[in-house]
Amino acid sequence: MSVTQLTREEREDALAALPEWRLRADGLAIERTFTFKDFSEAFGFMARAALQAEVQDHHPEWFNVYNRVQVTLTTHDAGGLSQRDVTMAKTMDALAG
Amino acid sequence: MSVTQLTREEREDALAALPEWRLRADGLAIERTFTFKDFSEAFGFMARAALQAEVQDHHPEWFNVYNRVQVTLTTHDAGGLSQRDVTMAKTMDALAG
Repeated sequence: MSVTQLTREEREDALAALPEWRLRADGLAIERTFTFKDFSEAFGFMARAALQAEVQDHHPEWFNVYNRVQVTLTTHDAGGLSQRDVTMAKTMDALAG
Repeated sequence: MSVTQLTREEREDALAALPEWRLRADGLAIERTFTFKDFSEAFGFMARAALQAEVQDHHPEWFNVYNRVQVTLTTHDAGGLSQRDVTMAKTMDALAG
C-alpha cells in the first residue's frame, strides 16, 4: 500500500483533532510527551502501544525515562506525516486515557 | 540504602568488564546501542529489561526506533555512575545475548 504525505490542509485538520500533539519544527513529524505515575505505568502504556504498532505496522520513535514517554511519529516512506501517524496518535491517546 | 558514585578506579574496572558500553562525555553515565532484527525483537528486549528494572529498582533512560534501542544508565541519587548501573548493564548484555 502506498503511503502519501498529508496535504497542508489535511495536516491542519489532523492537528486540530489532536490537541495534545504538536508539530515538530520541520513540519515532518508530530510529538507528544506522556507522563504517568511511575515506570510501571509508563512501561505498561508502551507495551500496549507496541502491540498496536505491530498491528498497524507503524512504529513510533520514543524515549522513556522513569514515568515519562516522549513520542515522535513520522512516516519515513512518505517523507513526512501520513494518515498512519494520525491513526497511531489517536491510538496512543486512547491507551493513555 | 545509600548509593555512592563509583571512584575513578572502580569506574575503570567496571568499563573494562563492559566492552560494549562507552562512558558518556561528561563521565556521569554509560551508553550502549543495541540493534535487533526488527521492532518485535527490540521491544521484547525492552520488556524483559523493564521487568528487571523493577526488580532492581533502577530504571534506564532509553530511546527506541524500530530495531534499535539506545540505552543510557546513570544514578541520579549518586550524581553519576554507581554499582547499580554496572549491574543493570550486565543484565541488559545478558538479555541481548
